[in-house]
Amino acid sequence: MCDPHPFEIFMREAIALARRGRWRAAPNPTVGAVMVRDGQVVARGYHTACGMPHAEVECLRDAATGGVNPAGCTLVVTLEPCNHHGKTPPCSQAVLAAGIRHVVVGMADPNPVAGGGAEFLRQHGVRVDMGVCEQDCRDLVDDFVTWKKTDLPYVILKLASTLDGRIATRAGHSQWISCAASRRRVHAIRAGAGHAGGAVLVGGGTLFADNPLLTARCGDFSDAFPAAPQGGCASIDETDAPRRQPLAVAVTSRMDEVAVRAADLALLQQRAADTIFWTTETAAASTAADTVRAMGARVWGLPGLDAQNGQDGQNGQSGQSGTDGTAGSGGTRLDLRAGLARLRAEAGCLYVLCEGGGQLGLALLEAGLVHEFELHLAPKVLGDNAARPLFDGRAPLRMDDALGLRVAATAPSGDDIIVTLRPRDYP
Amino acid sequence: MCDPHPFEIFMREAIALARRGRWRAAPNPTVGAVMVRDGQVVARGYHTACGMPHAEVECLRDAATGGVNPAGCTLVVTLEPCNHHGKTPPCSQAVLAAGIRHVVVGMADPNPVAGGGAEFLRQHGVRVDMGVCEQDCRDLVDDFVTWKKTDLPYVILKLASTLDGRIATRAGHSQWISCAASRRRVHAIRAGAGHAGGAVLVGGGTLFADNPLLTARCGDFSDAFPAAPQGGCASIDETDAPRRQPLAVAVTSRMDEVAVRAADLALLQQRAADTIFWTTETAAASTAADTVRAMGARVWGLPGLDAQNGQDGQNGQSGQSGTDGTAGSGGTRLDLRAGLARLRAEAGCLYVLCEGGGQLGLALLEAGLVHEFELHLAPKVLGDNAARPLFDGRAPLRMDDALGLRVAATAPSGDDIIVTLRPRDYP
Repeated sequence: MCDPHPFEIFMREAIALARRGRWRAAPNPTVGAVMVRDGQVVARGYHTACGMPHAEVECLRDAATGGVNPAGCTLVVTLEPCNHHGKTPPCSQAVLAAGIRHVVVGMADPNPVAGGGAEFLRQHGVRVDMGVCEQDCRDLVDDFVTWKKTDLPYVILKLASTLDGRIATRAGHSQWISCAASRRRVHAIRAGAGHAGGAVLVGGGTLFADNPLLTARCGDFSDAFPAAPQGGCASIDETDAPRRQPLAVAVTSRMDEVAVRAADLALLQQRAADTIFWTTETAAASTAADTVRAMGARVWGLPGLDAQNGQDGQNGQSGQSGTDGTAGSGGTRLDLRAGLARLRAEAGCLYVLCEGGGQLGLALLEAGLVHEFELHLAPKVLGDNAARPLFDGRAPLRMDDALGLRVAATAPSGDDIIVTLRPRDYP
Repeated sequence: MCDPHPFEIFMREAIALARRGRWRAAPNPTVGAVMVRDGQVVARGYHTACGMPHAEVECLRDAATGGVNPAGCTLVVTLEPCNHHGKTPPCSQAVLAAGIRHVVVGMADPNPVAGGGAEFLRQHGVRVDMGVCEQDCRDLVDDFVTWKKTDLPYVILKLASTLDGRIATRAGHSQWISCAASRRRVHAIRAGAGHAGGAVLVGGGTLFADNPLLTARCGDFSDAFPAAPQGGCASIDETDAPRRQPLAVAVTSRMDEVAVRAADLALLQQRAADTIFWTTETAAASTAADTVRAMGARVWGLPGLDAQNGQDGQNGQSGQSGTDGTAGSGGTRLDLRAGLARLRAEAGCLYVLCEGGGQLGLALLEAGLVHEFELHLAPKVLGDNAARPLFDGRAPLRMDDALGLRVAATAPSGDDIIVTLRPRDYP
């Protein structure tokens, strides 16, 4: 996956360190660094939280604590050392001052304001190798790049399926596709997204069928993380208090149904103030919507895609790939991008975790709105084409018409494997 | 996946070495060994081919060549050193004589005749740690155990699908699901199976739709192997001449169709002497079968499952999961176990590579006849429930009714990932 470079193995350790900072580092990028002497790692650091020192500085501190002289060591860091005075002084100067003469960098700083660290170091006689494990290092900061370059939150799609692409039997039975470790991991991502000020997003089918609460509910997430995939989500431990629960967002054109079932719906009964409905502009203006608003929830009318600009997907079958997530409902296709941008602008959401169903997931994928797709694959075979499919609604005739993704990582998760997919190319 | 053991990392290297001997070692087990001193590997060996020295002896030779004194070293070996005089003298004695005082073993010898090596070494004061990476080491010799304990060949099922479990679009278009690296790998497995005296098996649907030749046709397989998954197939290089092509086996009840299309079928036109048809006992006695036999192919009538003993699978839908592999053909369910046993008994087949279709693959899985299932998963989404499914024909109502497998390994293969699955438990 990476170019062969003698420091690649150390870059992998730096990447693993970086992941520990996920959620807490936001809106900063996650960065990891190791110091290497004679083929051994002698110091480590990562950006632990926004406002805390950068990874390079943490690594230099770790060296000082351990009595290691950085002079003569190689610094391996996932992101180019910053060259500007932000919340902290420039890392490039700290690295130079420490006497380091060789720096191995994963990727150039995507932030033009902070960039130039490599050039600064080279001008002062430091050897700098750029682009070691570049793809993985780019993946690591895709959330940061998304926040910088777009008005959108970083969207993680998580779905679970059998080996043969089914999410439930023909009778609708789905408990459980994935193993306990994978299910705990979902709660851990919810916790992380909540910590960073994020939301969990589901379709109307999931809302009405599962009546979910969409909170992080595992007492201890630590066992969900040893198997965290490369490019996946890293740990947030229990010492950070108070933890915020993620917002809950449900997409449905059927506000009347929501109002009728209001007394049953866990979201309205237990956490209405944290709940947002995305619906059609018409439904958002209905009395049903007002009933729901009176319970404390927000109802947002989103523009329709078909009426607005015909972004109907490559093979849109009207009503089949509606975002309602309810088979046969003839759901209206909403402008999900508009909903996501509003979540970031109005609710400050940096992360959105979409947990399905498949119709909503496919709509996000087709619209190019998924940054990271975590497929929890259970080693089970239903072997029944009448069982519920992971995705439906497209009608490609040729294999070239498939939506193409890129495998960023695979990792075991209990009995399952987690495949992390990303867009084939970054824009 | 493994118990934590300080020599686990070395056992992983021994396992990787062992895989290099796959195909050539048959009917012996593949075994790998490394010698470790002060945390460094100082010598390596594996069982390169049947009749050649065992891995331990190769490793001792490598040490001698490199001027390494084995005394004081730890020997890490995937399989318990043998304790009997077979084609070679007992490895247990060679290890002891070399002055090794610590042996780390992956799994006990499953061959009662050869066993006892660990006990012999312990009696002579050698420390022996058993069971390091035991599951992976057990997987490594599952072919050998199958040959010893059953009358069957070792069966590898290989299928390729999209991320959402599809093998072709609704129009039947399937070229290509998997990437070039994955397709080369299939040819490399064919080459290996052919070398070891094996067969490639396909259903009638594949036979009639693809008209395949089922030979290994890549000039250079080397690039198919760097990404070989743990538990997957290792390399066979081009220096072994002459390479045998695998036998070709096609399963179909429609011998009349075979006879009618005889002038078109590549198998009959180009390699009839290497071709075997499995069909019903009735069809095998037909004049169509005699026509095919006259062209040089073999036609075997297999007993039917339904008539014979009602082994109809858990949710058998008559005609749906027929072994013909032709949708809607109402294929008869043949006793595939009988065919496999006959392949081993009459044709000496040690390996059978089943390349589909899904109906035949599912029938083998349901009958518990698949030892290793290699799923080539392409990071593509068709998103169409009318596209051709990986598997069909069962009708489970609850998730517990799914066929359960175990993930033995995952590995990248070009753009794809290869997931290697095995039975959940060994008998």
